[in-house]
Amino acid sequence: MADTAFSILDIVRRCNCVDDLDLLVNDEGMYRFVIDGKLVGAVSDKDAQQLQMVSDEQARPPFALDMERRLLTFSSWCDNRKKRTAAVATVLEQLRASGAWASLAKWRSELYMVYGSATDPDGVSLALERAASYNFGIRTFGVHINGITKSELGQVRMWVARRSLQKQTWPGYLDQIAAGGIGDGMGVWESVIKECNEEGGIPREIACRAKYAGVIQYFTRSDLGLQPETQFVFDLVLPDGFTPYPNDGEVDSFHLWTIEEVIDGIKQDKFKPNCAVCIVHFLVRHGYLTAENEPDYLDIVDNLYVRLPFPAPRFSIAAERRGCDQP
Amino acid sequence: MADTAFSILDIVRRCNCVDDLDLLVNDEGMYRFVIDGKLVGAVSDKDAQQLQMVSDEQARPPFALDMERRLLTFSSWCDNRKKRTAAVATVLEQLRASGAWASLAKWRSELYMVYGSATDPDGVSLALERAASYNFGIRTFGVHINGITKSELGQVRMWVARRSLQKQTWPGYLDQIAAGGIGDGMGVWESVIKECNEEGGIPREIACRAKYAGVIQYFTRSDLGLQPETQFVFDLVLPDGFTPYPNDGEVDSFHLWTIEEVIDGIKQDKFKPNCAVCIVHFLVRHGYLTAENEPDYLDIVDNLYVRLPFPAPRFSIAAERRGCDQP
Repeated sequence: MADTAFSILDIVRRCNCVDDLDLLVNDEGMYRFVIDGKLVGAVSDKDAQQLQMVSDEQARPPFALDMERRLLTFSSWCDNRKKRTAAVATVLEQLRASGAWASLAKWRSELYMVYGSATDPDGVSLALERAASYNFGIRTFGVHINGITKSELGQVRMWVARRSLQKQTWPGYLDQIAAGGIGDGMGVWESVIKECNEEGGIPREIACRAKYAGVIQYFTRSDLGLQPETQFVFDLVLPDGFTPYPNDGEVDSFHLWTIEEVIDGIKQDKFKPNCAVCIVHFLVRHGYLTAENEPDYLDIVDNLYVRLPFPAPRFSIAAERRGCDQP
Repeated sequence: MADTAFSILDIVRRCNCVDDLDLLVNDEGMYRFVIDGKLVGAVSDKDAQQLQMVSDEQARPPFALDMERRLLTFSSWCDNRKKRTAAVATVLEQLRASGAWASLAKWRSELYMVYGSATDPDGVSLALERAASYNFGIRTFGVHINGITKSELGQVRMWVARRSLQKQTWPGYLDQIAAGGIGDGMGVWESVIKECNEEGGIPREIACRAKYAGVIQYFTRSDLGLQPETQFVFDLVLPDGFTPYPNDGEVDSFHLWTIEEVIDGIKQDKFKPNCAVCIVHFLVRHGYLTAENEPDYLDIVDNLYVRLPFPAPRFSIAAERRGCDQP
């Protein structure tokens, strides 16, 4: 076994590293991002200043800063989902064109929803380009699929994916067999089918066997910004003889590892942090990691699921099974 | 289907009903219970006043109240686990004899540990009679076992227990097949074997098949007081033909219900609240309740696991398998 420089608690804390948003706002002069009186994110001082300076096509500034109360809000004319979405799109195009926000160089052409509206039928206050989600620190949603195999003798192994060195984020790190953000108003299940196909070349008829296994939630932070995230987790037992293959260039290679190899990889910090959290959740659910073999057990579990202080959608609205039935 | 007066969110909130301890302390004049500078519980104004008035056999008051800061602490002479445990035992004997604390009429002769000590080898600051745990609002630990059956065609049913009408708490309510508090320094796994035997008449060789399934955590409150609790959850598939039977008089009868019947029972508020939370956790883990069939999904999940602001033990210290191996 190679050196294991980190404990599992270190690794999950590396992902769930934001405990107190108020402290962060105060210490770093961030701005709370508030829509219709609801906290929906947090923006750095630098980004907030830039947002304040931009205007839409009719020279109206969409954003207002309250420096005293550390609040970034929409101007009063931006009073519904449609107007906010259009105004933010215009602003982001400008920031992208000027190169002011490095994050926007990796434009995704995918909209992430910001929830909390009492008037919009889907509860959406705003939809914005995914690449800017970190800048606004909005709550994001995704799916993570653990791809496993079971031998006749019951030995469990897990497929791990090495992320492409060309990936925008965490190049070369290890990942789940398939995972991705839920954008553009997609449903949870629909996202599973899509990611299984795109990232692992897993056909619909196999992806449909994924078993829903609960939720992880963490509040993370990287160079890109803040990310409070909810991940819907699935376990997918892959049939004998099936080998995943990269379908969209996001994965460099797949490897079938024993659980011990996976645990070593986690402790050696080889996994993308939120993937590590997802696998630790797997280890907890399946009894590989217990209160009795892991001294940090309860501290670890505390970091697999935290309440996030931002509104969430009611996902059933967007539900679409498209011929797949949940187990 | 009978009337379902409650949503699942109502039911889990009924259990996890304490969101903000500070608010409770301020609104109701409670006292934070602090040992060695660590918050370990909360005590009502009435109970705190009574604790302040009692003394040990040498006429020394073990407790001190700081009314300004709303703190209940030990007197300086009670400076280690042994002295605190002895002093509290003496105090509780007096409160029991005088009838001042109704809770102590149901004396359990079982010690619950209060954690957070930096000097005690097991991290225990104090051990106290279980019946008084609610009065001190200390963090407690338990095990809950979901007893299920699977038909050849895959239909899952769950054994539910009707609590004896003579039970001290929640008489007549529905319960898991086996559940109980972890006291007297027992291990998690040891407690599973013990409760399976005592409450369901489940022999060791069957109980050993229980599969560890994670943790629920809630902060509840009842007439008895505050209870921030951690429950280790297990699923136990019972063999065909096995029928549980009450071994210790705590259960009135057992019933084998379909998952639909169990869900109806939850919505009709027939289950002891923390058992309902444990079953909802089961429903989430096994995909009966998903983000796509339950509009309150994320709010429900938020109430199955909350961080508790009190120290926890490192359970592995007390681990004993006694011949049983985890899954």
